[in-house]
Amino acid sequence: MGKRIAIIGAGPSGLAQLRAFQSAKNKGAEIPEIVCFEKQGDWGGLWNYSWRTGTDEYGEQVHNSMYRYLWSNGPKEGLEFADYTFEEHFGKNIASYPPRAVLFDYIKGRVEKAGVRDLIRFRTSVRRVEYSEEGGNFRVVAEDLVKGTETDETFDHVVVANGHFSTPNVPEFEGFETFNGRILHAHDFRDAREFIDQDILIIGTSYSAEDIGSQCWKYGCKSVTVSHRTAPIGFDWPDNWEEVPLLSKVEKKIATFKDGSSKKVDSIILCTGYLHHFPFLEESLRLKTANRLATADLYKGVVWAHNPKLFYLGMQDQWYTFNMFDAQAWYVRDIILGRIEVPDRDQMLADVDARVAEEDAIDDPYGPIVYQGNYVRELIAETDYPSFDVDASDQAFIKWKKHKKQDIMAFRDNGYVSPMTGVQAPPHHTKWVEAMDDSLESYLQI
Amino acid sequence: MGKRIAIIGAGPSGLAQLRAFQSAKNKGAEIPEIVCFEKQGDWGGLWNYSWRTGTDEYGEQVHNSMYRYLWSNGPKEGLEFADYTFEEHFGKNIASYPPRAVLFDYIKGRVEKAGVRDLIRFRTSVRRVEYSEEGGNFRVVAEDLVKGTETDETFDHVVVANGHFSTPNVPEFEGFETFNGRILHAHDFRDAREFIDQDILIIGTSYSAEDIGSQCWKYGCKSVTVSHRTAPIGFDWPDNWEEVPLLSKVEKKIATFKDGSSKKVDSIILCTGYLHHFPFLEESLRLKTANRLATADLYKGVVWAHNPKLFYLGMQDQWYTFNMFDAQAWYVRDIILGRIEVPDRDQMLADVDARVAEEDAIDDPYGPIVYQGNYVRELIAETDYPSFDVDASDQAFIKWKKHKKQDIMAFRDNGYVSPMTGVQAPPHHTKWVEAMDDSLESYLQI
Repeated sequence: MGKRIAIIGAGPSGLAQLRAFQSAKNKGAEIPEIVCFEKQGDWGGLWNYSWRTGTDEYGEQVHNSMYRYLWSNGPKEGLEFADYTFEEHFGKNIASYPPRAVLFDYIKGRVEKAGVRDLIRFRTSVRRVEYSEEGGNFRVVAEDLVKGTETDETFDHVVVANGHFSTPNVPEFEGFETFNGRILHAHDFRDAREFIDQDILIIGTSYSAEDIGSQCWKYGCKSVTVSHRTAPIGFDWPDNWEEVPLLSKVEKKIATFKDGSSKKVDSIILCTGYLHHFPFLEESLRLKTANRLATADLYKGVVWAHNPKLFYLGMQDQWYTFNMFDAQAWYVRDIILGRIEVPDRDQMLADVDARVAEEDAIDDPYGPIVYQGNYVRELIAETDYPSFDVDASDQAFIKWKKHKKQDIMAFRDNGYVSPMTGVQAPPHHTKWVEAMDDSLESYLQI
Repeated sequence: MGKRIAIIGAGPSGLAQLRAFQSAKNKGAEIPEIVCFEKQGDWGGLWNYSWRTGTDEYGEQVHNSMYRYLWSNGPKEGLEFADYTFEEHFGKNIASYPPRAVLFDYIKGRVEKAGVRDLIRFRTSVRRVEYSEEGGNFRVVAEDLVKGTETDETFDHVVVANGHFSTPNVPEFEGFETFNGRILHAHDFRDAREFIDQDILIIGTSYSAEDIGSQCWKYGCKSVTVSHRTAPIGFDWPDNWEEVPLLSKVEKKIATFKDGSSKKVDSIILCTGYLHHFPFLEESLRLKTANRLATADLYKGVVWAHNPKLFYLGMQDQWYTFNMFDAQAWYVRDIILGRIEVPDRDQMLADVDARVAEEDAIDDPYGPIVYQGNYVRELIAETDYPSFDVDASDQAFIKWKKHKKQDIMAFRDNGYVSPMTGVQAPPHHTKWVEAMDDSLESYLQI
């Protein structure tokens, strides 16, 4: 068909896009030439663990935000691929909260089967993307980090799939310049054993705060203090764990909070979220959005309304992940293949406004789950992505939330029903709180 | 004169360039329009301390590599500005190894006096520099990080002055993926008190290794182990300090070295140098050089031989710093003002070759100092930069090396003769090893 497509990033979203095109090709469609640019040396995005923090061996920002001993913090029944089940990959029914290495293996399994690795230029960092009005196409400049050489090419479409959990949002508090301990963002957290016997202070109340606090607790820190801006997380935490108001200042190693209370702390871990960060995109192409379910300026959550030749995958705040990226990637593919028509700019922006209004109107605590489930359902209805039991995924998420409320240190000992196979997951062979070895071999008992 | 000049970076090199032009203007010369792009919120480059590591509040790589309690590791008599002495700035004769805050104050003093701050666009990151053969000029795209807006402008000359001690060179050793302590590069080291009571392992033997080891020792770490690739540093270290061969692997918290010896370590600090890193420059403009006195491809150490409209400041390995950057900036200014002619490409490359050969032929341990002193002397002879007693600076460096050899924990208690005023610096009021407060007020007793 003569078109050329650039995909930026070979994590779960970028790989979903590769798999979507390969699936169409397998069914006889003519597909465009595809180049996927990946800064890291391997695929998998965030799931490709690195001990490095800051910049990598080529001076590029380290993408990885995961850490050792990380287990999925949500049930696998919420993220299963509809075209490649856990049971297909592992040859057996596995428990619901796999460690990172197990999920990485699963992600790789699908794309290895699809045979799309040769479409990826690894260790290649996109430096600049610009749209040419005359050419009606994009200029993409990228650097081969190993050779130090640049390519300067044109593409008809660009799919931005570099994720939004890699560039930390790092606030400052009074006294940080002179605090006598380590201050780090969750992005740079690697091994909970570094914090053994320490009093740690966590700022923030979202997933990183819960999970990094739980990790440090599990591996033997002395105490966990979690500081919140608006409200405590409110789970039934262990005895050496407390929730306090927002930090007001630190002096030497003493942290003082808004209620006037204070505590000696050894390290401060900022679990304060991430930025949508696209320094390689020219300004007119750059998504600027809050981290929410209904992103700004993306028609159907994926089409850049100001230039519908440009797409973004996975830029939403997420309950749904892998299979939502799939739903998006199949949808984007079908626009590129001319199977789906994109309306005019006003209609696209009206679609965005409607999604924002619908999200803003949610008042049920489980409403966001159902909202995003409905979004996934909406997209997959328009393509040939395998239909699946979205209700079963919604239910897994809803039960997950309830299980966390029941016992935050034991929620991973539960299992859920696969939305793909309808089969109930078995409990894991070891309670999470006692499972210190997070390897694939240990988890799968192989 | 109608020309437009872009300077990238407002650290000591970029500020030297601003001061060079302002000096010419004060003497009646017509000078070009100048825009200096600075990613940070203030001037001073590395001397502008930040507690942050990794990425800053805008997702940009943190420039700062300095740490708390840092004192100059070389004598101030080696870096004094010829047009603005320490005595002029502080109103008195001060000791030879000032802490960071004192040197930062000195750097700022000159440029505040010069009144060049309004030429700098702070919080502005250069995204892309390309040369246009047709226009005979450069395209510079930059982002205002606060507003999120881009500018896209042309300049007749570009001066690259972003430094080369900001992007760490980070090697990997066997077992790093599973080491149970912190691994950091010197770039991310901030407060030696984080390492109190720890056994620290330092990889590397250059300035960062010496100084970070000494800091950790001074502030109370349990032991320092320094691992070298080729040879130990060889100073007369304290009792709880040892030098060992290169690391071969780590397992949990045990480090094993090439000689088979092993040691339990809590943290690993990689003092393994920095990369020359210019991701914003198109490939044909990008300096690729080892960190050495005679850089690749730079005529007179500053002119990009492949396109002499482009200049680099301070890209050498450095004995001389501030006043060498001045000598370079005045030289570059005079090329831009048409006062100095640049020869053809072959002659420029022959100049580079000659400098490389001369450096390679050095066999005297003090030879590199004299070599770089001669380079400074060569450049200042060709401009109106105030002449100064380069021999006195050479002597300060040579004595410094001897003083380190005599007592590595006491070398900062010595003083040297100013190459500008001829006056001997007084000893500091407190021995370095006992001076725990590194503030300007404490140092200057004000």
